[in-house]
Amino acid sequence: MSGRLALGVDYGTNTVRAVLVDVETGVEHATSVWDYAHGEAGVILDPKDVNLARQHPQDYVDGFIASVSGVIEASGASPDQIVGIGVDTTGSTPIPVDESGTPLALRDRFANDPNAMAWLWKDHTAHAEAAEITELARQQGRPYLDKCGGTYSSEWYWSKLLRCARVAPEVFDAAANWVEFADFVPAWLTGTLQNPKRGICAAGHKAMYHEDWGGLPAPEFLSALHPRLRRTYGEAVPSDRSAGGLTEEVASKCGLRAGIPVAIGAFDAHLGAVGSGVKPGTLVKIMGTSTCDILVGDGATPDIEGVCGVVPGSVIPGLMGIEAGQSAAGDLFNWWVGLLGMGADAHVSLQYQAAQLRPGESGLLALDWNNGNRTVLVDPLLSGLLVGQSLYTTAAEVYRALVEATAFGALTIVRRIEEAGVQIDEVVVCGGIAEKSPLAMQIYADILDRPIKVSASAQTCALGAAIFGAVVGGVYGDALAAQRSMVATPKAVYAPERSAVDVYAGLYALYARLHDGFGLRGRPADLGGVMKELIAIRDEARGGHGRGS
Amino acid sequence: MSGRLALGVDYGTNTVRAVLVDVETGVEHATSVWDYAHGEAGVILDPKDVNLARQHPQDYVDGFIASVSGVIEASGASPDQIVGIGVDTTGSTPIPVDESGTPLALRDRFANDPNAMAWLWKDHTAHAEAAEITELARQQGRPYLDKCGGTYSSEWYWSKLLRCARVAPEVFDAAANWVEFADFVPAWLTGTLQNPKRGICAAGHKAMYHEDWGGLPAPEFLSALHPRLRRTYGEAVPSDRSAGGLTEEVASKCGLRAGIPVAIGAFDAHLGAVGSGVKPGTLVKIMGTSTCDILVGDGATPDIEGVCGVVPGSVIPGLMGIEAGQSAAGDLFNWWVGLLGMGADAHVSLQYQAAQLRPGESGLLALDWNNGNRTVLVDPLLSGLLVGQSLYTTAAEVYRALVEATAFGALTIVRRIEEAGVQIDEVVVCGGIAEKSPLAMQIYADILDRPIKVSASAQTCALGAAIFGAVVGGVYGDALAAQRSMVATPKAVYAPERSAVDVYAGLYALYARLHDGFGLRGRPADLGGVMKELIAIRDEARGGHGRGS
Repeated sequence: MSGRLALGVDYGTNTVRAVLVDVETGVEHATSVWDYAHGEAGVILDPKDVNLARQHPQDYVDGFIASVSGVIEASGASPDQIVGIGVDTTGSTPIPVDESGTPLALRDRFANDPNAMAWLWKDHTAHAEAAEITELARQQGRPYLDKCGGTYSSEWYWSKLLRCARVAPEVFDAAANWVEFADFVPAWLTGTLQNPKRGICAAGHKAMYHEDWGGLPAPEFLSALHPRLRRTYGEAVPSDRSAGGLTEEVASKCGLRAGIPVAIGAFDAHLGAVGSGVKPGTLVKIMGTSTCDILVGDGATPDIEGVCGVVPGSVIPGLMGIEAGQSAAGDLFNWWVGLLGMGADAHVSLQYQAAQLRPGESGLLALDWNNGNRTVLVDPLLSGLLVGQSLYTTAAEVYRALVEATAFGALTIVRRIEEAGVQIDEVVVCGGIAEKSPLAMQIYADILDRPIKVSASAQTCALGAAIFGAVVGGVYGDALAAQRSMVATPKAVYAPERSAVDVYAGLYALYARLHDGFGLRGRPADLGGVMKELIAIRDEARGGHGRGS
Repeated sequence: MSGRLALGVDYGTNTVRAVLVDVETGVEHATSVWDYAHGEAGVILDPKDVNLARQHPQDYVDGFIASVSGVIEASGASPDQIVGIGVDTTGSTPIPVDESGTPLALRDRFANDPNAMAWLWKDHTAHAEAAEITELARQQGRPYLDKCGGTYSSEWYWSKLLRCARVAPEVFDAAANWVEFADFVPAWLTGTLQNPKRGICAAGHKAMYHEDWGGLPAPEFLSALHPRLRRTYGEAVPSDRSAGGLTEEVASKCGLRAGIPVAIGAFDAHLGAVGSGVKPGTLVKIMGTSTCDILVGDGATPDIEGVCGVVPGSVIPGLMGIEAGQSAAGDLFNWWVGLLGMGADAHVSLQYQAAQLRPGESGLLALDWNNGNRTVLVDPLLSGLLVGQSLYTTAAEVYRALVEATAFGALTIVRRIEEAGVQIDEVVVCGGIAEKSPLAMQIYADILDRPIKVSASAQTCALGAAIFGAVVGGVYGDALAAQRSMVATPKAVYAPERSAVDVYAGLYALYARLHDGFGLRGRPADLGGVMKELIAIRDEARGGHGRGS
């Protein structure tokens, strides 16, 4: 192997993945994956509290060394070929650290104390604290939630810090600082733990950071939440900036060259969008158990109600990063297959049967809220709904209705963002559903009425990290230029089918009535015609022979 | 066997059942069942029209002779012991007949013509004609629908006659008259086919017959529907009246004594209620694939909106007969088991699992409308609804929610009838669900907040027919007296459990919001809090540990 390479390191929920990418062509030369050693598949749980999810920071250190050593060895690359390193992680996953920047969990005093570990993104112990933060921001008329959809989440930075202050004051008081996972790794790699640079992605989307109000929330806001809760960092910067050069110590352990630049870290979804070719006009949907939606808009992009983040430079420096998401996608389909008592391979047969159905012909309509609604309602206390069942409704019809429901949810997000003036011409999808469900892809094309392109890479997050490795390595002047060379053309494109588009437009009008009727309070909705309209659409789809069957 | 006996003959959809009952004790001495010979399990279908369902009148003749001969032979009873005969049938099942009263289907000209056969109760070919009749009655300001809930059904007498006039004029024009199945059998047994007596049950519930407007609808109303549609009979009478004495011909074929009195016929559900001990204050629910609800009220009982019949003497002579019903019960549970890909024996395991759940703990709520709503909305163009699903919802939880939904539907009927001043103190159930689902019985007791009593007899329809056989045979002065001797105490009683009653009261309030929101047009409903309230009830039922699971 010859030529210049960038190293992308992707920290997921269960594994670390290191990928070596050719900076000229984007070809992924080698991959190495390491499973976290602690907890259940990397996650420390509490049998007494289903909301708790933590990770041990030692896995972050060990995981880098293992996966990167592995990829270097597997590729046979020379250290001199590697021009830069990029890192993405889950988040918001804040870690309490001491004065030296060392995670408290690595100190004897707090060994095995989950509260001193990393508070993993999906830890929901802080739901009461999140509501408290939202309430206080509203009471005080603070603009802090304008950039994150109007509601603060239990998954985010300040909720978790406040929770720790409440339930584990000994940890909270011992913490000199809290560092996002995405900032911790580059700081550790570059020997800057004592004064880590902060990425705009985590700061802007999860910590209420914005230059409009001078960075983090005002000290008096934080102290009203808890007397010892305080601002802990200054400026936050995008991923085309370097955190520093790789230390001699880490370089020697991994077979790398000391001093190569490490990019500022960012979240996996955001860098996954970069690796999928996100650009103005393109929505990237990372579709797995849930979805994360990433776009970029120009500087004039306004705040968008119910959209969980609008942050300058959080995806592509110089453009507004926009993040939205759906609380369930693959999880919803898996739920149905599991309820049926079937194994995971049943997706194949259910998709096959569901694909034989014409849009509208089942007479069914569902809401995709079995796990709440992340965007645009930002409400975890919602639930699923299915309407239109007859005595002949089949399992495959329900399966299709659930896929359609997630696509209607996606369209609701698209419409909200377009209303804010951000145009969406095409959708690029990556993740498990994109790879495994041609049924879902065609339904998304028909319901969104836009081409659906399946991302060329199966490891877009690591590719996105490598792209920033190439930028900080000086190969490209900016991320867009790097993308043009390093992101390949989609591996599949699904085009909308006109007849399906028309039927789905009618069904979406009914979905929107259910969405608003059940999702908004105090706004009476006329749902009395919904069942009849579904039956009319069904009979039309069946060619008028529907009644009684 | 000694003592006096009454013969009850029950014509169902697939079989005829003859039962010999001791008139003093109600003990059922012998039973004989005969399967109809024509069609699929007695029903003639049309592969090109799922709505069509007919029966061959020859089966009605052959079925009596076979089943009655069988029961006489099996019992060893002497013809002199039998004091009277009662008959119940399905309905509305009208039969076109010639001048002699002979069914057209028995004449060569119309052999094998389904339009000349009996139009079975569940034939839905006349749905357009039913809507036309409803519309005309409203336009002309006629009171005809006041006694049957305000909407005429495709299953009923005039819809079917009008449909025949439209699609088979040669049959319609050849018919000198149309006779309900329930009137045909007694007329044939007593040699009065040329001028059959009419039962008030079929006339009042299905043919818009009422003495307030002089019997059947006015000639000018009928001729506005079709120029040759006309009134075809005069007075209709209750089942304590005799249709005549048994003919020599039939008596000799069956081993009976000629001349024994035959009661005026009535519908199976109505006589099933009599055999279940219906009396003022008692609701009888016949629960099979769907339910039929029968009550009796005093003479002051008003018309009840959405209740499909309020007819003097249709159940117990001298009392107001009230009929309501639910479009799906067992059919709904069977649908769910079938969707799961399970066999009928899965009901046992699903009931077992569902019975482990506390009321409210699933967070689910359903509408029981997969087959439309018969009472109180009278709307076939409604459909099923399920709300409250999480990613952890199980098949057994949905099963329980469906059972609860039918019970909430039952409560809606009970409330509507009580609002009209008819008190309901207890509920007696019979039919397949009553026998097979202790889960459903307990849920009904808790949701209706009344004791649920399971009828002692498993063949209440035939028992009810035999009760009227005993009355016309002169053993009792009236049906209530006969019931006191011949109806045994319930075989099981389910008492409401206080804690469940309270939870279900909260859930019913939400059911009522969904019911009105989706069932009524033009009345905007505030459903925005429904999902949150279900989650709150769920968490309460789980003892406050619900979140996230």
